Amino acid sequence: MQLDTPLQNGEVALVGSGPGDPSLLTLAAARLLADCDVVIYDALVSADALELVTPTAELVFAGKRGGRPSSTQQDICHRLVQLSQAGKRIVRLKGGTSCIFGRGGEEMRALYAANIKFRIIPGITAGIAAAEMAGIALTDRHNNATLAFLTGREADDASRIDWLALITAFPVLVLYMSAATLSAVAKKLLAAGLLASTPVAIIHKATLANEIINIGTLSQASTGDLQAISPSIVIIGEAVQNRINWQE
Amino acid sequence: MQLDTPLQNGEVALVGSGPGDPSLLTLAAARLLADCDVVIYDALVSADALELVTPTAELVFAGKRGGRPSSTQQDICHRLVQLSQAGKRIVRLKGGTSCIFGRGGEEMRALYAANIKFRIIPGITAGIAAAEMAGIALTDRHNNATLAFLTGREADDASRIDWLALITAFPVLVLYMSAATLSAVAKKLLAAGLLASTPVAIIHKATLANEIINIGTLSQASTGDLQAISPSIVIIGEAVQNRINWQE
Repeated sequence: MQLDTPLQNGEVALVGSGPGDPSLLTLAAARLLADCDVVIYDALVSADALELVTPTAELVFAGKRGGRPSSTQQDICHRLVQLSQAGKRIVRLKGGTSCIFGRGGEEMRALYAANIKFRIIPGITAGIAAAEMAGIALTDRHNNATLAFLTGREADDASRIDWLALITAFPVLVLYMSAATLSAVAKKLLAAGLLASTPVAIIHKATLANEIINIGTLSQASTGDLQAISPSIVIIGEAVQNRINWQE
Repeated sequence: MQLDTPLQNGEVALVGSGPGDPSLLTLAAARLLADCDVVIYDALVSADALELVTPTAELVFAGKRGGRPSSTQQDICHRLVQLSQAGKRIVRLKGGTSCIFGRGGEEMRALYAANIKFRIIPGITAGIAAAEMAGIALTDRHNNATLAFLTGREADDASRIDWLALITAFPVLVLYMSAATLSAVAKKLLAAGLLASTPVAIIHKATLANEIINIGTLSQASTGDLQAISPSIVIIGEAVQNRINWQE
């Protein structure tokens, strides 16, 4: 299938906008944003990315920040179906990419159930872009053959994560949505046996002009001496130690 | 830093070209390809992506396929340094993105050691694009909080992977470079205790016109009844079962 052909009436594109820098949108994303009727966008979509939207399109905010009333996932799915049935050509624009911690699965299922034509335009997920901006090679054939992505929303006692298995299987961990729970996650990892000296990188607003990169240790993350402000990606493992600070 | 500003003389950009469809290149990648002196590209870069290169640039193949003489990683690093020192504006173009099974770390280190200015332009990694093309939500808050990437080049007895820990920690596995070793990897996973009925998706040439998606079970992958042809991404886990076949 060709991803960047014009949308048909009633068609939905689930489009990843990447980590933030608008030059990291794909050509396909830029083409669809320039020729659509409605854009439904999340909080993590950058203002610069929205400048690529045709002035004739309606912009609908579906995020959960900044004090604005929040949309539930059900609301968003309902809205997508409704607008499609009204014949609109719709771009559903997400931070990163739809199916990595982006609830793309839920929207796909809703559209499919309503018999609505849609396509998925992949984007660059924030975890990978953040690592590259910090000069961290998430894989390195000399050091690791595996890599784990996880959400920091699993730090409580109801966690589905087997922390011992996690650190045994994975020398490099990439955490999404972990600003609020970093200390709790670090404590879980320490309790499972990861060394207190394990390096930790926190990349806030990766690729944007106000990007901040902080480096510390797992011990510092557990005590709160090393903190993350949302939105941040957290990378844990020796790979952080070997980073090349290419932006300096 | 701004990623898409013109390259300076002697500067190198390590650019991810994404999974194959040229419309999945980033705007930054397209801008740099349109204004550079040399492009050094890998086998996994699609021919269509190379059409975005300015006609005045020199194209250098650095891949390892199709019977052509192969470049070692050392050769490539040496060439990058040499061309930079000659004042060329260089795009080092890779399939997917530089730092996910792309040896970006080695090239970063070589450039840094030679005191060469460079930047990294992230791309879309094939594993994520392949999943989205197959309608597989690699993460789903109701089903999994973790996701693993690994290389199939670790299927032999010298494997550094703890397979039991791997399947304990991760409900969803994304395998890169596993076409040749799929049966061996499947046997390791079965021996570690993963169910024979675990669904497996094989996505060959994700996003390209000749993309092929095959679905089967771990048991079929182990016996060779389900095979992968290079280049393929293999996804293993219940997430495959829940896929939405949106391209049909």
